[in-house]
Amino acid sequence: MNETTFEIKATGSIAEGVNLPPVDPDQDFKGYRGLSLAVLKATGARVWCSIKMSTDQGDFIGTLLPRSETADDKHFVIKLTHNGYNVGIKAKSVTHIEILGYKKAVYAIPEKEFPKDPAKPNVVLLGTGGTIASRLDYRTGAVIPAFSPGELYGAVPELADIANMNTKKIFGEFSENIGPMHWRKVAEAVVDEIENSNVAGVVIGHGTDTMHYTAAALTFMVQNLPCPVVVVGSQRSSDRPSSDAAFNLLRAVKTAAEGDFAEVMVCMYGPTSDNYGLLHRGTRVRKMHSSYRSTFRTLSDVPIARVSEDGFVPIKKEDEYIHRDMTRTPILNTAFEEKITLLWYYPNMQPDIVDAMVDAGYKGIIIAGTGLGHVNKPLYPALRRAVEKGVQIFMTVQTLWGYVQMYVYDTGRDIMEIGVTPLANMLPEVAYVKLGWVMGQTSDPKEIKRMMTTPVNGEITEREPFDGYLVHQGGLPELEDFFKHYQV
Amino acid sequence: MNETTFEIKATGSIAEGVNLPPVDPDQDFKGYRGLSLAVLKATGARVWCSIKMSTDQGDFIGTLLPRSETADDKHFVIKLTHNGYNVGIKAKSVTHIEILGYKKAVYAIPEKEFPKDPAKPNVVLLGTGGTIASRLDYRTGAVIPAFSPGELYGAVPELADIANMNTKKIFGEFSENIGPMHWRKVAEAVVDEIENSNVAGVVIGHGTDTMHYTAAALTFMVQNLPCPVVVVGSQRSSDRPSSDAAFNLLRAVKTAAEGDFAEVMVCMYGPTSDNYGLLHRGTRVRKMHSSYRSTFRTLSDVPIARVSEDGFVPIKKEDEYIHRDMTRTPILNTAFEEKITLLWYYPNMQPDIVDAMVDAGYKGIIIAGTGLGHVNKPLYPALRRAVEKGVQIFMTVQTLWGYVQMYVYDTGRDIMEIGVTPLANMLPEVAYVKLGWVMGQTSDPKEIKRMMTTPVNGEITEREPFDGYLVHQGGLPELEDFFKHYQV
Repeated sequence: MNETTFEIKATGSIAEGVNLPPVDPDQDFKGYRGLSLAVLKATGARVWCSIKMSTDQGDFIGTLLPRSETADDKHFVIKLTHNGYNVGIKAKSVTHIEILGYKKAVYAIPEKEFPKDPAKPNVVLLGTGGTIASRLDYRTGAVIPAFSPGELYGAVPELADIANMNTKKIFGEFSENIGPMHWRKVAEAVVDEIENSNVAGVVIGHGTDTMHYTAAALTFMVQNLPCPVVVVGSQRSSDRPSSDAAFNLLRAVKTAAEGDFAEVMVCMYGPTSDNYGLLHRGTRVRKMHSSYRSTFRTLSDVPIARVSEDGFVPIKKEDEYIHRDMTRTPILNTAFEEKITLLWYYPNMQPDIVDAMVDAGYKGIIIAGTGLGHVNKPLYPALRRAVEKGVQIFMTVQTLWGYVQMYVYDTGRDIMEIGVTPLANMLPEVAYVKLGWVMGQTSDPKEIKRMMTTPVNGEITEREPFDGYLVHQGGLPELEDFFKHYQV
Repeated sequence: MNETTFEIKATGSIAEGVNLPPVDPDQDFKGYRGLSLAVLKATGARVWCSIKMSTDQGDFIGTLLPRSETADDKHFVIKLTHNGYNVGIKAKSVTHIEILGYKKAVYAIPEKEFPKDPAKPNVVLLGTGGTIASRLDYRTGAVIPAFSPGELYGAVPELADIANMNTKKIFGEFSENIGPMHWRKVAEAVVDEIENSNVAGVVIGHGTDTMHYTAAALTFMVQNLPCPVVVVGSQRSSDRPSSDAAFNLLRAVKTAAEGDFAEVMVCMYGPTSDNYGLLHRGTRVRKMHSSYRSTFRTLSDVPIARVSEDGFVPIKKEDEYIHRDMTRTPILNTAFEEKITLLWYYPNMQPDIVDAMVDAGYKGIIIAGTGLGHVNKPLYPALRRAVEKGVQIFMTVQTLWGYVQMYVYDTGRDIMEIGVTPLANMLPEVAYVKLGWVMGQTSDPKEIKRMMTTPVNGEITEREPFDGYLVHQGGLPELEDFFKHYQV
């Protein structure tokens, strides 16, 4: 342990009538070290104390939680009393801690040896944000403290009924910081596991903020899959009563172990109940609510299947998804051109926005236009200039649902004549990811256009199913029946 | 008529077996003049001919339609055979016209005098894209040829059962070209009508691409309304069997004439049937499908009411919307700062994007962040630099549904410390419009923040109703019952 001396400005106090038991150094500072430990010792606060923590950023009232052994030494984690959220607070920002109470909780997850059963399939869980399961953090797929197979088994013993689990941490990153470099590492790890570890499928723990971008990137970077690759996360940590963490993890592992799918999918909570999750195709899924558990929706298409503890109920037809075939060898291609951008059109957008991107050296632009794929006239000369400088420009729709149709109006055809290529019903975010991947492989404009308009797996579809605009309920029969009577 | 001589490169031919009647100059070139007329005469083609028109942009097969007297002289309009769309084609791009057949259609709308009934309320229809009703173009709210009250009455005689109609053209613009200058003109016209024309309500014909931006702008620019202001358009022109043009117009006029609402609303097709339309609050509505009629959805809230020929079924509670009160005087405030932008975050966004906007003189930025309102760490220094230069920055969520909650993670609090202000559940596009309007009135950072975070009419709500994430069906009882059993 690093025994640096810290200069601590924080002070401590104990509210009237609060009695603390004698200090147990093994438990009372669990997971804290360095600066954060020094602040605890200086203020008298301990894990499981109910506290009011005053900081440069204001006061926080809640319970001081233990941290994992691998956590940094710069933060406290407090479960806020008023909403149950766990928040991280910088140790150096703390000015005072008032201890309001103490109630020791049973929080540690009993670590048990994960029982291996040679008759069961092997599944690997790749971590991208530290740890997963007990508290499946929505931005990192991280958790305190379960991540080793033994810890996972202690937290969610039902996992052992499904598969022999192994876990590997690839990196630890907040979801919003994940980018091409991380996609590459995950893609390489997926292929490595499939080729060398005799797995039936791969599960990737991921923060939910950018999970859909990663699922799209993996679809392009790892093709010809023999088995399921399932990206999973959680919107609510497992220490909240409404957590989706264990549900999602169990269903993702079940999909990897037994599912007859060989695609990159997002496995998250279904729209309306605890009873099932949905498997979304990696190129047609988007995060649509900032806080609900049912945040992921398949757009302009239907989810692949419903998954529950009882098994799978396909929503797509047999010939509309890729089936498991363990004789296939995955093809890895992680090239990525980072100098690309996504331009979300708004009324009165001025050409200097486009000019600035061209001048900054951007080589590719995805536009999310209005309606069927439009931008205002003042942008035309800037777009023309960009094309003349070799910038590759593609059009998607900001309505998110539906197709670009630029031939309907002559202004649309004018934009195409400038050299902007429509991308049918590709989601703007998926188009952004695909453009980077395509331009990582070729700088030939014709080849870029060909690859962009040729779907790898469902990012462009010929037609939208009748229920592709609905919030798909995943096969609840009563609702399916209901919607059949209505046309949009 | 301008008798300029044109140099025509286009040639004409007639398919075998096609017989054309003698030319009727009054009807056969209806609405065509100048260059377009010269091309028709040179090629032998006429209105109502089924033709194959070869152009620089490819071939178009369809029926040549008549145009309105006020149309330009540079385009042909053809109804495409394969999908029923009407497309505009540049006369100068035509190289050859092959006549495939001829079938005269009854297309002209009988113009009748609009019957005025002193017992009925007066409603004015303000046109922003030329004309409205018979063919309600989805981008312009335009139509060929009905727009005068008499033409409207000829096309949709049921209008006379509801109100005494007057019509005024404010400007003619494709929806994607509409911006602050146009919002200002519409706002002024709305106030002028309310103050000087004894109207029960105002209807605004508008292209659907950017209708929601305009509805938001009018909400801010015209406050303290005594009566309904209804923005209406159509996704499918009325010469298509599935048109929503007459439905939408009738319901918008009914709302303006009789509705107990005093808000800016969007009146468009309901999600599932011809039987009703929905009235969406101007600050909570968004175009969500590029081509469906049911494209407009209320997000993170429920629509105000369902409207049909039979009347109104409120979806919001009595105290959740503003009721008609003809004693109120509207307050007009059309100031707008145009140097603002909307930045839609994507993974790996690089700081040069933010720097470029600051360097180009942008004074305000709305960010659409991931999840609860996040961007990646490399942007922090660029955002800090922007704030130090006086740029006003606000955070919304790109999930579209749900709230920004930046206090949950310390990275969120870091972004707030930089000076980025969270905007709760304001839609990114609405935030963009509001920022321009607010910064048009004040440059005081504190006042800008105060105004941005103080809702004018529902752009921020305290909580999302239980069914705010659903695709609201507008009060279909069976579905309402159904959803009550499920929680998201």
